[in-house]
Amino acid sequence: MKRWRLGLQLPITQWLPRYNRQSLSHDVTAAVFLTIMLVPQSLAFALLAGLPAQVGLYACLLPLLLYTLFGTSQTMSVGPVALIALMTAATLGPLYSLGSAEYLTGAVLLAFLSGAMLIVMGLLRLGFLANFLSHPVISGFITASALVIIASQLQHLLGLDSRGHNLIGIGSTLWQQLSQVHGLTLVMSAGVLLFLLLARTLLAPALQALGLAERSAAIISKSAPIVAVLGATLLTWGLDLQARGLAVVGEVPRGLPPLSLPPLAWEQWQPLWLGALLIAVVGFVQSLSVAQMLAARKRQHVDPNQELLGLGVANLGAGFSSGMPVMGSLSRSVMAYDAGARTPATGAFTALAIALATLFLTPAIAYLPIATLAAIIIVSVASLVDIAAIKRTFHYGRPDFIAMLATLVLTLVHSVATGLMVGVGLSLALYIYRTSNPHTAVLGRVPGTEHFRNTERHRVEVYPDFALLRVDESLYFANARFLEDTVMTLVSEKPQLKDLVLVCPAVNLIDASALDSLDNINARLQDAKVRLHLSEVKGPVMDQLNRTHFPATLTGQVFLSTYAAWCALRPEPGDASSTHTSNNISDNNNP
Amino acid sequence: MKRWRLGLQLPITQWLPRYNRQSLSHDVTAAVFLTIMLVPQSLAFALLAGLPAQVGLYACLLPLLLYTLFGTSQTMSVGPVALIALMTAATLGPLYSLGSAEYLTGAVLLAFLSGAMLIVMGLLRLGFLANFLSHPVISGFITASALVIIASQLQHLLGLDSRGHNLIGIGSTLWQQLSQVHGLTLVMSAGVLLFLLLARTLLAPALQALGLAERSAAIISKSAPIVAVLGATLLTWGLDLQARGLAVVGEVPRGLPPLSLPPLAWEQWQPLWLGALLIAVVGFVQSLSVAQMLAARKRQHVDPNQELLGLGVANLGAGFSSGMPVMGSLSRSVMAYDAGARTPATGAFTALAIALATLFLTPAIAYLPIATLAAIIIVSVASLVDIAAIKRTFHYGRPDFIAMLATLVLTLVHSVATGLMVGVGLSLALYIYRTSNPHTAVLGRVPGTEHFRNTERHRVEVYPDFALLRVDESLYFANARFLEDTVMTLVSEKPQLKDLVLVCPAVNLIDASALDSLDNINARLQDAKVRLHLSEVKGPVMDQLNRTHFPATLTGQVFLSTYAAWCALRPEPGDASSTHTSNNISDNNNP
Repeated sequence: MKRWRLGLQLPITQWLPRYNRQSLSHDVTAAVFLTIMLVPQSLAFALLAGLPAQVGLYACLLPLLLYTLFGTSQTMSVGPVALIALMTAATLGPLYSLGSAEYLTGAVLLAFLSGAMLIVMGLLRLGFLANFLSHPVISGFITASALVIIASQLQHLLGLDSRGHNLIGIGSTLWQQLSQVHGLTLVMSAGVLLFLLLARTLLAPALQALGLAERSAAIISKSAPIVAVLGATLLTWGLDLQARGLAVVGEVPRGLPPLSLPPLAWEQWQPLWLGALLIAVVGFVQSLSVAQMLAARKRQHVDPNQELLGLGVANLGAGFSSGMPVMGSLSRSVMAYDAGARTPATGAFTALAIALATLFLTPAIAYLPIATLAAIIIVSVASLVDIAAIKRTFHYGRPDFIAMLATLVLTLVHSVATGLMVGVGLSLALYIYRTSNPHTAVLGRVPGTEHFRNTERHRVEVYPDFALLRVDESLYFANARFLEDTVMTLVSEKPQLKDLVLVCPAVNLIDASALDSLDNINARLQDAKVRLHLSEVKGPVMDQLNRTHFPATLTGQVFLSTYAAWCALRPEPGDASSTHTSNNISDNNNP
Repeated sequence: MKRWRLGLQLPITQWLPRYNRQSLSHDVTAAVFLTIMLVPQSLAFALLAGLPAQVGLYACLLPLLLYTLFGTSQTMSVGPVALIALMTAATLGPLYSLGSAEYLTGAVLLAFLSGAMLIVMGLLRLGFLANFLSHPVISGFITASALVIIASQLQHLLGLDSRGHNLIGIGSTLWQQLSQVHGLTLVMSAGVLLFLLLARTLLAPALQALGLAERSAAIISKSAPIVAVLGATLLTWGLDLQARGLAVVGEVPRGLPPLSLPPLAWEQWQPLWLGALLIAVVGFVQSLSVAQMLAARKRQHVDPNQELLGLGVANLGAGFSSGMPVMGSLSRSVMAYDAGARTPATGAFTALAIALATLFLTPAIAYLPIATLAAIIIVSVASLVDIAAIKRTFHYGRPDFIAMLATLVLTLVHSVATGLMVGVGLSLALYIYRTSNPHTAVLGRVPGTEHFRNTERHRVEVYPDFALLRVDESLYFANARFLEDTVMTLVSEKPQLKDLVLVCPAVNLIDASALDSLDNINARLQDAKVRLHLSEVKGPVMDQLNRTHFPATLTGQVFLSTYAAWCALRPEPGDASSTHTSNNISDNNNP
């Protein structure tokens, strides 16, 4: 339809000429609140990715600026997010030792590679690849990832040191160290967690009770993490808690990140490409759904391929400026929307504010307790655990649930990459399985009408030498063999059969494998002296069949309607007609 | 339907009690002709697999006996075949050096592993997995494999020594040695090739002209390879040609193969499992189509899962008796059928004959020129090259052709494994792509009838505040996003819209992703004050929807027929009705 236009537009040219003072005031206000939310989150997600805290800030600068230029979403906020930080850690962890220079370079390369992949996908208009990720797989993946993230942060809450990127690895290392829990760290963690949870659950209602508007109350309650960061940092600095064993972020380099080209050696890229691809695809799918949700609120349209470009350029920018992979953040985008952001300029103003923070606030970060960041991560990802979706899928359908469960379990106990890939593979395989054994019905005429119904559900007219077979699925390689089997079984059950009509209203596609099967069926029926006819073939399907030898070799005819086939082929009245009677006659809507 | 019964039956119990003298005489005759064809082929295919010639004979003994017990096909002949021999060589070649003990053990393990996989697939009733191989992918794979096989035998025809399992590797090594072509070998090769080609093309017609029945003439002409083998061996022995540089098979161990368990160490299995899986799947798919073709001639039925067991046990047998992977051979099965084989006992008699050959003929094999076997291989696989199928697929449809071409080219220039896996992946991806962007139509009523047609193809009644949208595809994860886009675009184009009916006769399936999308559409339309209705929902689909909250939240109704929706929702006559006129009014059969 109207999708898949060529990319390489600059969406900024559409909104910048109309930019005015009112937009400016809205955007600046939103940028202030966004910065307050973004600073603690970006520090925390860098920690989650196994990277120095300042890398999180770096990943907000160029990406935000570049998305302002290339992104289509009016209010989406790109930057570090928990899911992508986990995937970064899971990709780099097995390859490099934590804290090494190779690990840092790996993160930069990962951002660069996934950015390049997103851009290539955008230019080749491969946005449709996102369709391979079914909702149950994404949902299972996000829930499992959130649980892994929470587990991975327990070490920081307890003052321990766990390893691994799945529940088994993390759990076993934590279990061994359980006697070494650091009391002061635990107190700090509990305090921050309690504060954040109270702020999330009670602050907004309290502020509303004090007369604040709902939206303002929500925005203020979302500033709790920065308050926690400031409070914990001041407390640590004032009481010299780091000397008593509380882990802190420590000295970080001051100033803006250096711009640099990532290393171009294939040996360094080779172990990262699969991780980069998964980050690109997951980042794209998640960002796209955030962008579409926000666009729907304003009745706007998001072009998936332009979005690929915007996100790709943002990740390239992260790669050039010592950052980490980024994507659109749901929580921050909603915050920006609620705070009144009007245009992507909000992102540019936020980048400016983060740049100032990077220049002037980094010395203070030295006293920020890591436990505080861990608590912020846990509270922010806890809402991603969606047990209701698992239940809903369980009740809806087994194939979807199997794919979801496999993704969930494998992500929890093995790795994010395995969970995701097995989930995608399984949903494809199960779809193929479902359509490889489609519903079929032998039809008869509802007496005195032009309607034809399933002989097993309705009282209809049938003849021993004439059969109508409806297949409720497109005919393609997965069910080509099934079709042959079904027809030959029907023929063996009806020894008097002379004419068989394949009724095709549900056949949206006939591929080369199914055409081969139709050829075989036609030839075998000819041996058995049965003519094969088709009816209700859809226009595009018939157009394709007409390009082959098939219509010429078909022993019977192609009828526009099943009634036309009935009129042309039924025996003389009174001949061998019989009205089939079934116990299962119903008025249900099985056509 | 009636498929997927539990395996573990012994089909022999069905035919053995009715076995009589007439069957015996037919089966023994067929076994004699089969042995005459099988001896040279099994020696040649062992050579093709990079194995000593006697391994080919070994792979005929236990497999033929076991298939007699477990196979369902009455006349299928299992044993070494060219395609599987090539796949064996392609799996083992990169791992072990040709002629080493490891290479030999690898072949045994490969037979054992693929046999075990086939049995597991049969017990788990995974016969449907064969459906993943679409006809164009198999066809492209077989044509490419045949070309690679022919290329790999050129070295033996020319007395050279090439390396590699694709055209590039073989071609480049042959090119470098082109000056060293061995004259005597070339003369022998040309003679045998000419003899085989003449026998194939001229012998049968000549024999028929002499008054022989068509079938007898065909059987005799198929004995040409054994004549070539006998003639070439005698010539070499008599003229001492091996002393002049003609490569011969050489001394082979005399006697039956030792029975032994393959090594059980995982380190030895690990590099072979992918190759074994591909051999299992390709062997199964090919054997099944041979079995089905033969069964159809006798109006019998083949159970795919029982066939998995039969083929699996045959391969296990090959693994226990120092053989190589086996499958059903098309050419030998047709030969057995034509020679009058009545029951699987033919296989047992053939095994007996091969055992005698192994015991008493092996000394003679020492003088058999390798060039003769290479010529036999080339003539036997040349008929597998199917250029017409490539042309037909090209004209039929682009997605099928792309999958076929990718399989063909990658098999030729990279490897059989890559070609096959990319082909399967691509056919899945292209199917998903095709269904991710399905055909949709806005419908209107054909005036005065209960029929609804595409507004773009027919002159139909439409209203500005009422729309009928038909989607010609099952709704599932690949097109969930498309559905949302299509509906929201339609709504934005019809500002007066109050009621939208999704017309669902072609929707065979609604998965959890599509249900999410329907939920979203319902909610967004509610915001836009448009009611969403469904019509012509199929029984099984509606049953599934009724298990969810969706019918309760749906803003509109579910109608049995589109006409019922029209009657319930259309405005009063004369209101704002308009008859849509289109330039493209036609009588084509697009419903």
